[in-house]
Amino acid sequence: MHYLVTGGAGYIGSNLTDRLLSLGHRVTIYDNFSTGFYEFVEAAAKNPNFTCIEGDTLDGDKLKAAARGVDFVFHLAANADVRFGVEHPRRDLEQNTIATFNVLEAVRVNGVQGLAFSSTGSVYGEAKVVPTPEDAPFPLQTSLYGASKLAGEGMIAAYSEGFGIKATIFRFVSILGPRYTHGHIFDFFRALTTDPTRLHVLGNGRQRKSYLHVQDCIDAMLLAVTKAEGRLNVFNLGWDGYCEVLDSIGWICNELDAKPVLTFAGGERGWIGDNPFIYLDTKKICALGWTPKFTIEQSVRETLRWLRDNQWVFAQRT
Amino acid sequence: MHYLVTGGAGYIGSNLTDRLLSLGHRVTIYDNFSTGFYEFVEAAAKNPNFTCIEGDTLDGDKLKAAARGVDFVFHLAANADVRFGVEHPRRDLEQNTIATFNVLEAVRVNGVQGLAFSSTGSVYGEAKVVPTPEDAPFPLQTSLYGASKLAGEGMIAAYSEGFGIKATIFRFVSILGPRYTHGHIFDFFRALTTDPTRLHVLGNGRQRKSYLHVQDCIDAMLLAVTKAEGRLNVFNLGWDGYCEVLDSIGWICNELDAKPVLTFAGGERGWIGDNPFIYLDTKKICALGWTPKFTIEQSVRETLRWLRDNQWVFAQRT
Repeated sequence: MHYLVTGGAGYIGSNLTDRLLSLGHRVTIYDNFSTGFYEFVEAAAKNPNFTCIEGDTLDGDKLKAAARGVDFVFHLAANADVRFGVEHPRRDLEQNTIATFNVLEAVRVNGVQGLAFSSTGSVYGEAKVVPTPEDAPFPLQTSLYGASKLAGEGMIAAYSEGFGIKATIFRFVSILGPRYTHGHIFDFFRALTTDPTRLHVLGNGRQRKSYLHVQDCIDAMLLAVTKAEGRLNVFNLGWDGYCEVLDSIGWICNELDAKPVLTFAGGERGWIGDNPFIYLDTKKICALGWTPKFTIEQSVRETLRWLRDNQWVFAQRT
Repeated sequence: MHYLVTGGAGYIGSNLTDRLLSLGHRVTIYDNFSTGFYEFVEAAAKNPNFTCIEGDTLDGDKLKAAARGVDFVFHLAANADVRFGVEHPRRDLEQNTIATFNVLEAVRVNGVQGLAFSSTGSVYGEAKVVPTPEDAPFPLQTSLYGASKLAGEGMIAAYSEGFGIKATIFRFVSILGPRYTHGHIFDFFRALTTDPTRLHVLGNGRQRKSYLHVQDCIDAMLLAVTKAEGRLNVFNLGWDGYCEVLDSIGWICNELDAKPVLTFAGGERGWIGDNPFIYLDTKKICALGWTPKFTIEQSVRETLRWLRDNQWVFAQRT
């Protein structure tokens, strides 16, 4: 199979690329390297089945050319940070919604067989049902990030209906593991390596979050796109449980041997649109035979060790 | 109050403009006259409280200037036709999703107090619960139109959360009454006045649809934006019941005194993304004290009489 992976130099994309190459597939990545790293595809680049196209998902023509002859597209390129939407309202619209439209057009005009999309548990807003199933009550959006991903989901579903494209939508919790380069574990690690005596926490630290290891995530994605029947499928991907922000701070301090004084911004939410309780119902993907291998604590600790061994990423993330 | 009505020369927009003016308000309409009619605002234009700005919602700067000093925005400009999405996939994205983003930015930068948005029952896709309540199970989109309106809803909700804008989202069934200029009643009327001996029907004619009279719709919108508490509200607007396409054909034939031979394209759906059963639960808006005055049959018949008396619109709709 020939796969196109948008955002293939990014966190999940580069891990997926390595996996697909290891399975003997041909992989073309399409990345503008705005948040992706050349370092993440250095190993892949030695594989003759690997092609790298430096391009922006807002460049529809280049994207169409990149998808020529491709069998399947994993669309992972995105503005992946749920925070800060209000500081640059247009970013989520462009990089998530319009970009996804461009991917759909590239898929359509090239007759690509299948498409998978990285959506987010943020589309549930502040879910009324927890753990939250895929058919939870119609949510109200609370972040521009979630809204832009929901818009992507809607267009994908409509394209699937209108043009017969097989599509799989994944609603992720936060993903952890090697090459993790944004989010609060990243921020806490950086803050504590700079000053291990204190740590400032957004919100009250009691936000309950679920996490999934990137390798478990990739296992689930490949299983779903292979095994799920029907033209359009939506799957939650997460761990069957959650921790508090304070738990992850404990693990970080333990790994770093730090004993900081904690200060709290206060309130239930870390930022506008922060969901104080994320916990997705994963029965649907589990019914296909998937079981995650890493606990949340293992995922956090492995992330920390990877960050410790790859501190060059901090220099490139301001 | 000073209202800005996008799409104010359109079907619902011009009826709303007339109502707001009759209540003594100041109204600025913003319309590109692509589907709106100068004739629809001829009476309004005689009112000194009325201003017409010819502009496109894709022109963000012009829109921002138009919203300066405005108290409240009714955002009704849209590609309003649920059909044909697959023939020009970009239209819904641009005219509904990106345009709504531009309206939100105009609202935000001008500090406009409130916003109301014409969404659609099509966001429920093929609803699993009928009559469909606002918190129905998370739907899958079946049309680019529905997807683009859902995207608009999501951004509005996120802006409401992020910037404290009071917003009301209305999910309409099909609206009937004076100035109705697209949809199947329009198509059937035109076909039968051209050739009363035969009529071709998309689908099997058994599609069940709900309709609402435009004056009832405006009653509900004004009630909701005045009375509903909380920062963000979503209301279904529809009639508590439905008819079959064959029922409306019967009323049309009766009004026109036509006895056509009917032929059917067949199938449950009239087009890709057609929902064979639209019937919205309207308990939430009714709880505010709203009751529609026109039955579906009355709405259809009044639409037909208006079309009979205003056949000039057919010359301008190809």
